[in-house]
Amino acid sequence: MIRVGILGATGAVGQTFVRLLDGHPTFEVVALGASERSAGKPYREACNWTQDQPMPDWASGEIVTACAPEAMDVDLVFSGLDAGVAGEIEKAFAGAGVAVVSNARNHRMDADVPLLIPEINPDHLALVERQTWPEGGMIVTNPNCSTVGLVMALAPLHEAFGVEAVHVVTLQALSGAGYPGVPSLDILGNVVPYIGGEEAKMASEPLKILGGLSASGVEPAEMTISAQCTRVPVIDGHTECVSVRLAGAPSAAEVEQVLREWRSPLAGRGLHTAPEAAIQIVDGTGPQPRRHASAGNGMTVSIGQIQDCPVLGVKFVVLSHNTVRGAAGGALLNAELMVERGLVRQRP
Amino acid sequence: MIRVGILGATGAVGQTFVRLLDGHPTFEVVALGASERSAGKPYREACNWTQDQPMPDWASGEIVTACAPEAMDVDLVFSGLDAGVAGEIEKAFAGAGVAVVSNARNHRMDADVPLLIPEINPDHLALVERQTWPEGGMIVTNPNCSTVGLVMALAPLHEAFGVEAVHVVTLQALSGAGYPGVPSLDILGNVVPYIGGEEAKMASEPLKILGGLSASGVEPAEMTISAQCTRVPVIDGHTECVSVRLAGAPSAAEVEQVLREWRSPLAGRGLHTAPEAAIQIVDGTGPQPRRHASAGNGMTVSIGQIQDCPVLGVKFVVLSHNTVRGAAGGALLNAELMVERGLVRQRP
Amino acid sequence: MIRVGILGATGAVGQTFVRLLDGHPTFEVVALGASERSAGKPYREACNWTQDQPMPDWASGEIVTACAPEAMDVDLVFSGLDAGVAGEIEKAFAGAGVAVVSNARNHRMDADVPLLIPEINPDHLALVERQTWPEGGMIVTNPNCSTVGLVMALAPLHEAFGVEAVHVVTLQALSGAGYPGVPSLDILGNVVPYIGGEEAKMASEPLKILGGLSASGVEPAEMTISAQCTRVPVIDGHTECVSVRLAGAPSAAEVEQVLREWRSPLAGRGLHTAPEAAIQIVDGTGPQPRRHASAGNGMTVSIGQIQDCPVLGVKFVVLSHNTVRGAAGGALLNAELMVERGLVRQRP
Amino acid sequence: MIRVGILGATGAVGQTFVRLLDGHPTFEVVALGASERSAGKPYREACNWTQDQPMPDWASGEIVTACAPEAMDVDLVFSGLDAGVAGEIEKAFAGAGVAVVSNARNHRMDADVPLLIPEINPDHLALVERQTWPEGGMIVTNPNCSTVGLVMALAPLHEAFGVEAVHVVTLQALSGAGYPGVPSLDILGNVVPYIGGEEAKMASEPLKILGGLSASGVEPAEMTISAQCTRVPVIDGHTECVSVRLAGAPSAAEVEQVLREWRSPLAGRGLHTAPEAAIQIVDGTGPQPRRHASAGNGMTVSIGQIQDCPVLGVKFVVLSHNTVRGAAGGALLNAELMVERGLVRQRP
Repeated sequence: MIRVGILGATGAVGQTFVRLLDGHPTFEVVALGASERSAGKPYREACNWTQDQPMPDWASGEIVTACAPEAMDVDLVFSGLDAGVAGEIEKAFAGAGVAVVSNARNHRMDADVPLLIPEINPDHLALVERQTWPEGGMIVTNPNCSTVGLVMALAPLHEAFGVEAVHVVTLQALSGAGYPGVPSLDILGNVVPYIGGEEAKMASEPLKILGGLSASGVEPAEMTISAQCTRVPVIDGHTECVSVRLAGAPSAAEVEQVLREWRSPLAGRGLHTAPEAAIQIVDGTGPQPRRHASAGNGMTVSIGQIQDCPVLGVKFVVLSHNTVRGAAGGALLNAELMVERGLVRQRP
Repeated sequence: MIRVGILGATGAVGQTFVRLLDGHPTFEVVALGASERSAGKPYREACNWTQDQPMPDWASGEIVTACAPEAMDVDLVFSGLDAGVAGEIEKAFAGAGVAVVSNARNHRMDADVPLLIPEINPDHLALVERQTWPEGGMIVTNPNCSTVGLVMALAPLHEAFGVEAVHVVTLQALSGAGYPGVPSLDILGNVVPYIGGEEAKMASEPLKILGGLSASGVEPAEMTISAQCTRVPVIDGHTECVSVRLAGAPSAAEVEQVLREWRSPLAGRGLHTAPEAAIQIVDGTGPQPRRHASAGNGMTVSIGQIQDCPVLGVKFVVLSHNTVRGAAGGALLNAELMVERGLVRQRP
Repeated sequence: MIRVGILGATGAVGQTFVRLLDGHPTFEVVALGASERSAGKPYREACNWTQDQPMPDWASGEIVTACAPEAMDVDLVFSGLDAGVAGEIEKAFAGAGVAVVSNARNHRMDADVPLLIPEINPDHLALVERQTWPEGGMIVTNPNCSTVGLVMALAPLHEAFGVEAVHVVTLQALSGAGYPGVPSLDILGNVVPYIGGEEAKMASEPLKILGGLSASGVEPAEMTISAQCTRVPVIDGHTECVSVRLAGAPSAAEVEQVLREWRSPLAGRGLHTAPEAAIQIVDGTGPQPRRHASAGNGMTVSIGQIQDCPVLGVKFVVLSHNTVRGAAGGALLNAELMVERGLVRQRP
Repeated sequence: MIRVGILGATGAVGQTFVRLLDGHPTFEVVALGASERSAGKPYREACNWTQDQPMPDWASGEIVTACAPEAMDVDLVFSGLDAGVAGEIEKAFAGAGVAVVSNARNHRMDADVPLLIPEINPDHLALVERQTWPEGGMIVTNPNCSTVGLVMALAPLHEAFGVEAVHVVTLQALSGAGYPGVPSLDILGNVVPYIGGEEAKMASEPLKILGGLSASGVEPAEMTISAQCTRVPVIDGHTECVSVRLAGAPSAAEVEQVLREWRSPLAGRGLHTAPEAAIQIVDGTGPQPRRHASAGNGMTVSIGQIQDCPVLGVKFVVLSHNTVRGAAGGALLNAELMVERGLVRQRP
């Protein structure tokens, strides 16, 4: 078993890590780290548990520690820290020889840090060799919650045709804003067409993920992305209305065939968190957050409404679970890939 | 006073007509028409009143009639009928010399029927001269609820620059589906990315409204529109995320200036239902349904989030009240324009 | 394996039966019955599936049959039929020697029909001996969805102290109204303080369930119940604010102790659907539908906010999952108890 | 015109004061007070305006002041301050000879402070004569938002029969928790059966309001009240399910008649904020927040579902608008009564 810690364990992403790591075959949670205010308290007292399933017993009585390498005897940490503090703390852990698997945005665009979706760009994991931390230390990140679904849909199309331009409008769930997050008075029976910083992340992160790895690092993919991001009164599940201009101008039917036939390179490799199908095509009035976000335990991305678009070529709707595939689950899958590749050192 | 009837008076749009006509200076409601099942009952019994304001006293005791010209002694009817029956009933009224102001979709695309937004294409009202109904008979329509907001925003840009292509994603309110409409189990905490027939209406109706009037009728505007329509858990107010490609590629700042400076041709003409500002630009995190749909008593269209779009040129968010500006209020303003133009005959 | 059919399989309760019976160790679903309109179609086409989990593969292609004994070769049927048709159809099945486990209200108050909650009144199952159907035929019912949670909380108190009077206000979930059920325009951001027939069921059903079995049948418990029922915008989970007058006027602390110490008579008997804990006490701001309805896979009833009540004595809040514990799951547990008792005949 | 200031003008209650005072015939707002952080800024910048109607122009540019008597040249202040600071600030204003009309809870139960509902206990205003502030100084309070609706319903019954015991379960709106208030993740599709301190206020405040005025102050009414308070996903409007034991045990029909025939003592006296009907009886499935909270511009209390209660005698459902009747509107009506009584001094 690999000994893991969770940074920011009392927050929304941290709680999802706790839930998803319950009963994990490879990772044993031995440390729950949070702010100074929480350190020293049992997790059940430090944490306003907001997951729909009960807190695991092993977590309940665990004493929360500080988020510092000297406070945690671990091989790997999952970071659900806020961006305000994640940058320095994650470097401290990497500097102490710990593998850092982060959901924070701070190091995503660093040249030597993989921005990883295991089904899409597993080769980018090689970037960690460029990192200069002491043995065992490294930082690996997963993308923003709204980026993942989009890239999962674009990657097969980019491979088959070449993506030239993307227009995406998101309808994002409340859990993406953390806790306490969006006040109920602002969103019940309402829509807010503004999420600070989100549109910029969606325009840049996919270029790195879909970029090619060369001797000098990642060469960003050449495509143009425009995003309009909105918040809607949904608990979990980001819905994205996407239109794409593809090289060769394939029809919606050709696009659908490519998406249906795409197979994840992880299939059959036994990674615990990898879903049976990384992409599913849904018919009828889907995909919908309440009906489809939990597919594949939240790791399957659903695509539907594939149609010709008279303006850009083809349009469709993508749905992904923002706190699982788009945060803790994605990071967990990253870590499982790192273990498979032999990158995670078990410290004595 | 002009004597008016309401067709489909017990439905969602019909109720909004009743509410908006309460205290109207020009129109006196003398007949409330509904299905055979309702005819003969007092309105308060025939109708499951779902407006937020109480039913006007004058309507409460009014005996509902059938939707037939012989049952109503009126100069003009407002039609909130379902498309399943609206086509024939509206023709019957026009054939009886009654002015029909319809919210139904049946005759919108007829070559000699104006698809009218008084601020945008008042000249199209001339089309009624091509209609061959007996004296006083005519049919005038207003656009689909999701079309109006879009066209209100596009018209100033089309005039200033020329609109070449439009991509729009809608987040539409529940009241747009009528009553009982969307089951709560389908939409609470959810989003449905499919509304039957809606995308086609949004792609075609704006071309007629923004088209030029020639000797042979309306020449559709030359632009390409692609729509993706979703339903969201909002009571009133359609939000639309719009990206446009404009001739000359103006910047977002130039687009904003045009929208801010645009003035309605109805300004100062005293039409009862015309709002002080037909378009308003909102800053910050708007426009939002709960905060802005009721601006100008539901007749003002709100626009915000105006930005450069790397894919199409400029993008922004439009919000309009779907049952007021997008249905009963829009029809009422059409009728007021018709009266101002002297088109409505008062029958003896 | 016992061969079972589902009556009303395409409805909301019927779908929950399908979901809960997926992988059941004792019951094999061999027939899905629905209305004539659906008969002959594959289940996936006949059914507007609204469960949050995907339709099981075995159900998907199953051809729907009529709800008639001659159309189903089964030992037992679960009935999720509407009350409008359930009465006669259930009698037809019982008359054909089939065990009927019904969620419909029609036969609940029949003198020889058990109104059963296996943890509370398992002895009432003896009532089936009074039924005069051919061998194997019998009718067993479970209570109304809002009754179950209340009775689960009252039973330990009735045993320990004696319940004299109960005042209950319900906040009931949308799924309790079936599909399409409550229109979204009626309930989004709203509360409806009226549910037809519900208050009467809550006042009478508990008396039968908590009644004693004598030679002449069930002697209703002597207590007075007053209910006020409201609908709230919640998907699953009925919340009930309960005040009780108990014999001997125990304190809230004594009541809490009784509830904490109560143990289900089913504990350790291996019934598949029986939860580990039939009652759980929750602290803090619970119980809440989104946080606690799924406890014990929806079969655990949660109780919290136990306090002294200056008017009646003690008050508390009960939460139960209305479509699982309050409908399909409750019926399933009834059937498991019937099998354990050897009441279900496997027909040749 | 009386010159008024608003304390806590940027908060939820303060904003409602600003909205309701727009165009008021007697009160001119000359000062908007808020925390030090806001002082010195224009109101539009200091305030996250969350009212559904636009900010009045006169307020928009007004420079926010500190909440101190020396910073405001006013005759009267409306206090929407948080309880954490209201106590001392309100005393400072009264000590400076300003009439304080407060919505805060701090002084409500003070022996010489009226807890006032103008239709119910206007005679309690005489308590201010016991206050010892300098000339013009006084403190008058309105009840908690959940108390008002209950008392409005109880008062006619107390007068007609005598109220002995009350059991009430509330379903309270989000706006009652202020802004940002309840996180959306806690309440969307959920119910929270706990509101800190609310049940105690509901048990005590009505006794003072319904109490008799004697030489030694208010003699609390002799009745027992038990409350269970829940939060529901509703924007405005507290719904309360009430059961009462009345002296003489009248029937529901007798209770309904008393409520229907009750007339407000303010009727016809021209107080600007007094509604035409202080109580209205609604039939059918009401009262409901979205349909009835705005009756009488939010000042009319709606009552429905009046039935016999087998436990306590009679039960019914009350609805009142919590931020209007239950907060700012109630305070405003208090002030209008104070002016009518000649209690408000216009300072030179």
